[in-house]
Amino acid sequence: MGLITAEQYRESLNDGREVYYKGERVENVATHDDLGVCVDVMAIDYEMAEHPDTRELAVMKDPVTGEEISRYYYKPQNAEDLLKAHALIVKATELGDGYIPLAHDIGADALNAIHITANMMGNQDYIDRIERYRKELQDKDLATCAGVTCVKGDRMLRPSDPGQAHPDFYVRVVDRNRKGIVVRGAKIHITGAAYCNDIFVIPCRAMTEGDKDYAVAFAIPANTKGIKQVCRPFTSHISPLDWPNTRPVRVHTDSFIIFDDVLVPWERVFLCGEWKYAAPMVYNFALMHRRTGCAYRIPLSEQLLGVAVAIAQYNGIFDAPHVKEKLTDLVIYLETLKSLSKTACYDFVMRGGVAVPNPIATNMAKYHFAHHYHDVVKNIQDLAGGLLVTAPTYKDYQRPELREAIEKYLVGNRNVSAENRLRMFDLIRRITKADLETICLHGEGSPIAERMTIYMEAQKVMNDCRKLVEEMAQIKG
Amino acid sequence: MGLITAEQYRESLNDGREVYYKGERVENVATHDDLGVCVDVMAIDYEMAEHPDTRELAVMKDPVTGEEISRYYYKPQNAEDLLKAHALIVKATELGDGYIPLAHDIGADALNAIHITANMMGNQDYIDRIERYRKELQDKDLATCAGVTCVKGDRMLRPSDPGQAHPDFYVRVVDRNRKGIVVRGAKIHITGAAYCNDIFVIPCRAMTEGDKDYAVAFAIPANTKGIKQVCRPFTSHISPLDWPNTRPVRVHTDSFIIFDDVLVPWERVFLCGEWKYAAPMVYNFALMHRRTGCAYRIPLSEQLLGVAVAIAQYNGIFDAPHVKEKLTDLVIYLETLKSLSKTACYDFVMRGGVAVPNPIATNMAKYHFAHHYHDVVKNIQDLAGGLLVTAPTYKDYQRPELREAIEKYLVGNRNVSAENRLRMFDLIRRITKADLETICLHGEGSPIAERMTIYMEAQKVMNDCRKLVEEMAQIKG
Amino acid sequence: MGLITAEQYRESLNDGREVYYKGERVENVATHDDLGVCVDVMAIDYEMAEHPDTRELAVMKDPVTGEEISRYYYKPQNAEDLLKAHALIVKATELGDGYIPLAHDIGADALNAIHITANMMGNQDYIDRIERYRKELQDKDLATCAGVTCVKGDRMLRPSDPGQAHPDFYVRVVDRNRKGIVVRGAKIHITGAAYCNDIFVIPCRAMTEGDKDYAVAFAIPANTKGIKQVCRPFTSHISPLDWPNTRPVRVHTDSFIIFDDVLVPWERVFLCGEWKYAAPMVYNFALMHRRTGCAYRIPLSEQLLGVAVAIAQYNGIFDAPHVKEKLTDLVIYLETLKSLSKTACYDFVMRGGVAVPNPIATNMAKYHFAHHYHDVVKNIQDLAGGLLVTAPTYKDYQRPELREAIEKYLVGNRNVSAENRLRMFDLIRRITKADLETICLHGEGSPIAERMTIYMEAQKVMNDCRKLVEEMAQIKG
Amino acid sequence: MGLITAEQYRESLNDGREVYYKGERVENVATHDDLGVCVDVMAIDYEMAEHPDTRELAVMKDPVTGEEISRYYYKPQNAEDLLKAHALIVKATELGDGYIPLAHDIGADALNAIHITANMMGNQDYIDRIERYRKELQDKDLATCAGVTCVKGDRMLRPSDPGQAHPDFYVRVVDRNRKGIVVRGAKIHITGAAYCNDIFVIPCRAMTEGDKDYAVAFAIPANTKGIKQVCRPFTSHISPLDWPNTRPVRVHTDSFIIFDDVLVPWERVFLCGEWKYAAPMVYNFALMHRRTGCAYRIPLSEQLLGVAVAIAQYNGIFDAPHVKEKLTDLVIYLETLKSLSKTACYDFVMRGGVAVPNPIATNMAKYHFAHHYHDVVKNIQDLAGGLLVTAPTYKDYQRPELREAIEKYLVGNRNVSAENRLRMFDLIRRITKADLETICLHGEGSPIAERMTIYMEAQKVMNDCRKLVEEMAQIKG
Repeated sequence: MGLITAEQYRESLNDGREVYYKGERVENVATHDDLGVCVDVMAIDYEMAEHPDTRELAVMKDPVTGEEISRYYYKPQNAEDLLKAHALIVKATELGDGYIPLAHDIGADALNAIHITANMMGNQDYIDRIERYRKELQDKDLATCAGVTCVKGDRMLRPSDPGQAHPDFYVRVVDRNRKGIVVRGAKIHITGAAYCNDIFVIPCRAMTEGDKDYAVAFAIPANTKGIKQVCRPFTSHISPLDWPNTRPVRVHTDSFIIFDDVLVPWERVFLCGEWKYAAPMVYNFALMHRRTGCAYRIPLSEQLLGVAVAIAQYNGIFDAPHVKEKLTDLVIYLETLKSLSKTACYDFVMRGGVAVPNPIATNMAKYHFAHHYHDVVKNIQDLAGGLLVTAPTYKDYQRPELREAIEKYLVGNRNVSAENRLRMFDLIRRITKADLETICLHGEGSPIAERMTIYMEAQKVMNDCRKLVEEMAQIKG
Repeated sequence: MGLITAEQYRESLNDGREVYYKGERVENVATHDDLGVCVDVMAIDYEMAEHPDTRELAVMKDPVTGEEISRYYYKPQNAEDLLKAHALIVKATELGDGYIPLAHDIGADALNAIHITANMMGNQDYIDRIERYRKELQDKDLATCAGVTCVKGDRMLRPSDPGQAHPDFYVRVVDRNRKGIVVRGAKIHITGAAYCNDIFVIPCRAMTEGDKDYAVAFAIPANTKGIKQVCRPFTSHISPLDWPNTRPVRVHTDSFIIFDDVLVPWERVFLCGEWKYAAPMVYNFALMHRRTGCAYRIPLSEQLLGVAVAIAQYNGIFDAPHVKEKLTDLVIYLETLKSLSKTACYDFVMRGGVAVPNPIATNMAKYHFAHHYHDVVKNIQDLAGGLLVTAPTYKDYQRPELREAIEKYLVGNRNVSAENRLRMFDLIRRITKADLETICLHGEGSPIAERMTIYMEAQKVMNDCRKLVEEMAQIKG
Repeated sequence: MGLITAEQYRESLNDGREVYYKGERVENVATHDDLGVCVDVMAIDYEMAEHPDTRELAVMKDPVTGEEISRYYYKPQNAEDLLKAHALIVKATELGDGYIPLAHDIGADALNAIHITANMMGNQDYIDRIERYRKELQDKDLATCAGVTCVKGDRMLRPSDPGQAHPDFYVRVVDRNRKGIVVRGAKIHITGAAYCNDIFVIPCRAMTEGDKDYAVAFAIPANTKGIKQVCRPFTSHISPLDWPNTRPVRVHTDSFIIFDDVLVPWERVFLCGEWKYAAPMVYNFALMHRRTGCAYRIPLSEQLLGVAVAIAQYNGIFDAPHVKEKLTDLVIYLETLKSLSKTACYDFVMRGGVAVPNPIATNMAKYHFAHHYHDVVKNIQDLAGGLLVTAPTYKDYQRPELREAIEKYLVGNRNVSAENRLRMFDLIRRITKADLETICLHGEGSPIAERMTIYMEAQKVMNDCRKLVEEMAQIKG
Repeated sequence: MGLITAEQYRESLNDGREVYYKGERVENVATHDDLGVCVDVMAIDYEMAEHPDTRELAVMKDPVTGEEISRYYYKPQNAEDLLKAHALIVKATELGDGYIPLAHDIGADALNAIHITANMMGNQDYIDRIERYRKELQDKDLATCAGVTCVKGDRMLRPSDPGQAHPDFYVRVVDRNRKGIVVRGAKIHITGAAYCNDIFVIPCRAMTEGDKDYAVAFAIPANTKGIKQVCRPFTSHISPLDWPNTRPVRVHTDSFIIFDDVLVPWERVFLCGEWKYAAPMVYNFALMHRRTGCAYRIPLSEQLLGVAVAIAQYNGIFDAPHVKEKLTDLVIYLETLKSLSKTACYDFVMRGGVAVPNPIATNMAKYHFAHHYHDVVKNIQDLAGGLLVTAPTYKDYQRPELREAIEKYLVGNRNVSAENRLRMFDLIRRITKADLETICLHGEGSPIAERMTIYMEAQKVMNDCRKLVEEMAQIKG
């Protein structure tokens, strides 16, 4: 066993899983007209391991066994490991035209978060289980994802609060038996769940003793009985109103996953009642996952800068002073993201035997991206002009009575054809859609979550700085 | 003659005009599945004149003839006239769920701009023509729109610059004869042109002597030979993925209008070569049109505040401190817009015999709306959470296997059903779409246009303030 | 009796009051080298009543008695009254080069707040007392101020909380006897207290039943036994390093007022234990006082715009695109303040028989001013350049060895002498000092106070907007 | 020869130089009551070389000669060299309580800029001269500074433009003879010039052929005949109104330097007419100097965060949600600066044989610091409250009648004495003064200069991103 091919991955998905899309039960996600497009994105991960240009980045020798494994499933030990993983995510996302393949990445974040927590607990059972499972993932090269966010119900109330409309807003253990545990609840926003092999499930918040049954973490095959998934709708093909484009559309979808009294065997249970460890598990997951988020948004930010530059040139306004100002802001946006992301690697910290990216820098990078994203979109729309939304469509262009006028009148910069300008508008509309705005805000945690983490992690630096000025002011006593 | 009914308006549109939509020639815009929805919005204007609740606002007695006319076609003389017109636009837009009917409004802005310019020129021919045309519009209650923005070509070059790829990027006079003038060129972003009766055409920029042939203004029936329109695609029906909603969808579309050597009779020509007056004509049009823009965005801003409040409550986060901060920002957004819009009326100025809203306040109001719009959208998406885009669809809800889980798990605040929460998400997605972002930025002129106008109009206040501080500093000489 | 002269006002201050400045007891504030400068500012109020140019604005006939009274002490009844008062404050502040005279203004805000509260209580004793006192203020034309902010101690604790280090952090009643009440505590930031006749004292927050003794309001002469004032240090003369300037320096100071068991006669007690009315009293005071704040900052904002324009011209950078952007921002800053301030008058509300400015617009105006002030300062410093702080001084200029070089080398725009440019730098340093930044932030309440008020006052509009969108979304039940 | 002591440095300054301060000729800057304070700051550099704790950072062995030299005068070759220099500046500034000693730092930036330029020219004479001079600076351990900014006159005109009021607004060569060149002109904002040994002079802008005489660079002892300096006034002692503080005040001053036909020997001339190389010389100087600026502002930003934390605690508002928000913003401010500064070292580029910090990251770091500085100050003033400016002074505290009340009433958090709170206010006022705002904006170049550099340096990344999206949009041709 060992690394598998993209084709093997695709075949593995035809396993009877219960997936719904736009109200229809999906027979086979890999061959479905829409979901198959997402599967192709996921497959890039496997293709990278096969392709000579990317093999060195995607694959590494396990230092103990000497076997070739996916770099994602390796437990990072130092800054260099983190920088390599960062480079891998960036490269993979470039190949995915801004979409990270995700076959191993988020799963790896969950895997490491569980590993860290097991080490923190010092619970040898859990340590053994997660190490065996890591080995299995490396051997079988499985695609994994992470189910983290519960549906939550009333967000001001704890999971076990009797004021909740029912007790199932957070995934919980409803029974335990010889074979394993039985879980109930629902997770939302789970990217890639419909087309991965195994799903990690971990808590999404700190728990108190009363919430003990909600302190549960496990891994489970996606086709396990009792698991239903509903995928959010998405656009998987170029609109017939847009100019034809043979480059594959890249996109992911997210699942609403219902756990309808699902049995999880003990061997895959990694937390079960140890409520104090719910917080560090999700906390460390969030940290590593936000690192992922920052990395894969670098290629996306390059696209955003790129369309701004292109359309400013095509519109013939590239040299206007206010245009330069806007482009400079986009450069600053991109380069700040890159700087903070790399700083997070250089200034890593060790947690439970795993090198994790610097918490302050990582959260700042994610917050930076999300907080300023709408301004970036605004700048692009400003540079593009109203034609971005009022331009005639490709369907209009195909009409003989209109083609000539479109070619004649919709030229801006005389060195750029109307067709090329209209093609660029098509692309801009695709990469500045409103659903992307929401995803950029909330993916990997909302802005307020990052701010709270920054504040919490900064207690030491705040205290040090306070002491410094107290010395300067000769504060007494 | 006099005021007409909504039905008469609808019938008047079946006049052989050449309109294309998604590559198809439209037989009759009033009965077209998509365009008919826009016609219904336009018809609100006529309905208001019939309905007792709104009649007093929509209709007034002509002080000279004593006849009932649309308030839009009255030439405002003082602050009260402007405040009434403001109230009329706000009310009409409320009835249009955020879309201003537009049957007379933008046309009236062009009508007044032409009137002001004729008076400034002191050209009695032009004055007589525009007065006769105003009378005709009042008598026939025609629906009008304004074609202002030319396609422009290279924006850094003048219309007549030989560096342009061809001489037709700005509408121009290509011939003059006994009957009238022949014009060629194209206008873009012309809202409502596909379903109005007459189209005003005015220049979109200042002209120099060399651009003389481009200094042309006129009015023309939409079905005139040689006029072709291409409408931008839009959504006119609730998606089957969304929850059913019997309230009519409200929307407008914009036309790309091609003038293919169109004959305009002299009686409808209002500028023809007087290049010095191109600037005041478009400038005053822009001013009145931005006033319109600010007024109709008040109901829209109320919707934006409303969805923010609603979804914060439905999600159960209404009392979180950061939520209060975001809602306060939305209140400030709305109330600043209202304050500046009314100040523009109170502090009006007289131009060419017409009371126009204060140029600085008007441009500030429009700039305020556009400049902060993306922040507003961001705040709403932030409050809504990721479920805004990942929630199961109405199609999923209709499946028996999923309905119960959706009803159970997608409740937030326990006092609000999952259905109501999902309905609110549907609405939020509709009113925070990316194309609206572009329209809010560029509608009635891009943000930089408003800033330049503010700067230009503020020369006096800047100078006064400079003198004040020079006295304080005892500047000599 | 009736209106008094500036001279009579100055003489009235020599009354044995206990005032300290920079550690020294002040004999007579009116003749003190520093404090006398503030007294001159206050005297502008009396001069305006004498001067024919301003008399009509500053003085009005009491509609009942027919006597001439200061407009400040008139109880406003409608929008016009508020607009007149607004114009009066603006004019007075213009005469004070950006400093409002304050002889009656803040006192009047307290007077009206007490009047409103008495009416709300329906307590005839209090109503009679405050009416008699209003009449006395009108008759004697006394200078008054308002002591509002207590020193507060631990801000998270209530006044009566036993966790406070002592019970005197908020002014409280420590004894009651036949003559009156005895009060103890301290007020801070009390502008003009050192050179007014009477001091109003009102609570600075909402009170609970346990805080009953802190629910106290009264008026008291500044020279009453037991009252000590410490004034904050300020600059009252042009520095010898700056260019000579014969125009009087304008400035105010604020007092830390200690009430050391001070007896207040019953006739001057306006609240004493009615804890529920502490909140409306301070709330309405804050509202009217913020209106004052917004009005007097209009001339200040004109100065800020003025120095920006002047120094951009003197430095020869007036036409650079980024300079125009900065100036446009300053214009928007000023005009937004003016628009919101006037809207507050037009959209007034009646409270307890008094027309008060619109709470939302008023708080928005004050918040606007404070929130963006640092940006304005930044823009000015940016336009001024480093020479603002590194330029040679007037003392250097007086040295023969240096004068020629200074005149030669420190010219920017060749049409402006080095002297004039250096004079402008002097002025800019004076009006962009760091203490002004703090005062702009916190004067009349900190930004968070205004935001909280906006949020609270906006409950109705928020609710209305929510209902609107619920109809659009067809929310059920 | 070799490293010198702080005492030797101080003695070297008594050399007859012509320095003016507040209109007085200074006898000896080292013993002057005000300037001596700056000299003490400069001396820290020499003390660090002597002190065992800092010696390793401050001193290094010349890899060629094996002699001990100041690390500042070493020519950096790689990321590690830059990171070490960065650490040295940060440490030195910490010892200077936020003021960088500057004895070698800015001089070294000029030295390296000249070295780079000589290498770019390939002019062996210049290369030899600058290498000999570098050796001399290392051997004698001289204190140096850099005179860069000319007084400029009309900024829109070139140095040689006949429209300038005179030809001397930029330093220029007025004569050449056997001994050397004669220069005339004036430089402003030259930090440390009054108390260094040698002054570097380089052009401050790109030059054209007509500006040839202005393309001049050299080094010159500060006591050379014809050089006059005027220092800007500053505060060198704790005010008697503030609480006594035995910690030395740290501060620098800047000189206006007049070059009154000064002879520069050929051996010290590094550019003389090669107008094409004025641009790279100043450009590379600015780059390295901005790196310096970012480094020394890290300790300053730590102070800013420190006072915010301290005063929030002392005022007892540390746990209020809006306070946490403000503190989080200050943490982000500091950590972004640190991240960008280190990225500039890691991503260095080689220029003319010298490792220089990454231009984009460096300019972004400096811009970040300057652009957000006023917001930081605003946040601190907001947290401090009005007492920051209205609190009684230490002079008041010394009065027996007031002391007890001050101690009683000016407590906030009950665990912090009034004295300590007032001491903290003193410190905050010192580190948030308006002149520091201007210095933070303009030091090392104004914000617009950094933005323009970012834009220019980002041409490659902009182009790459544009190509990327053109592939995605399948742009043809």
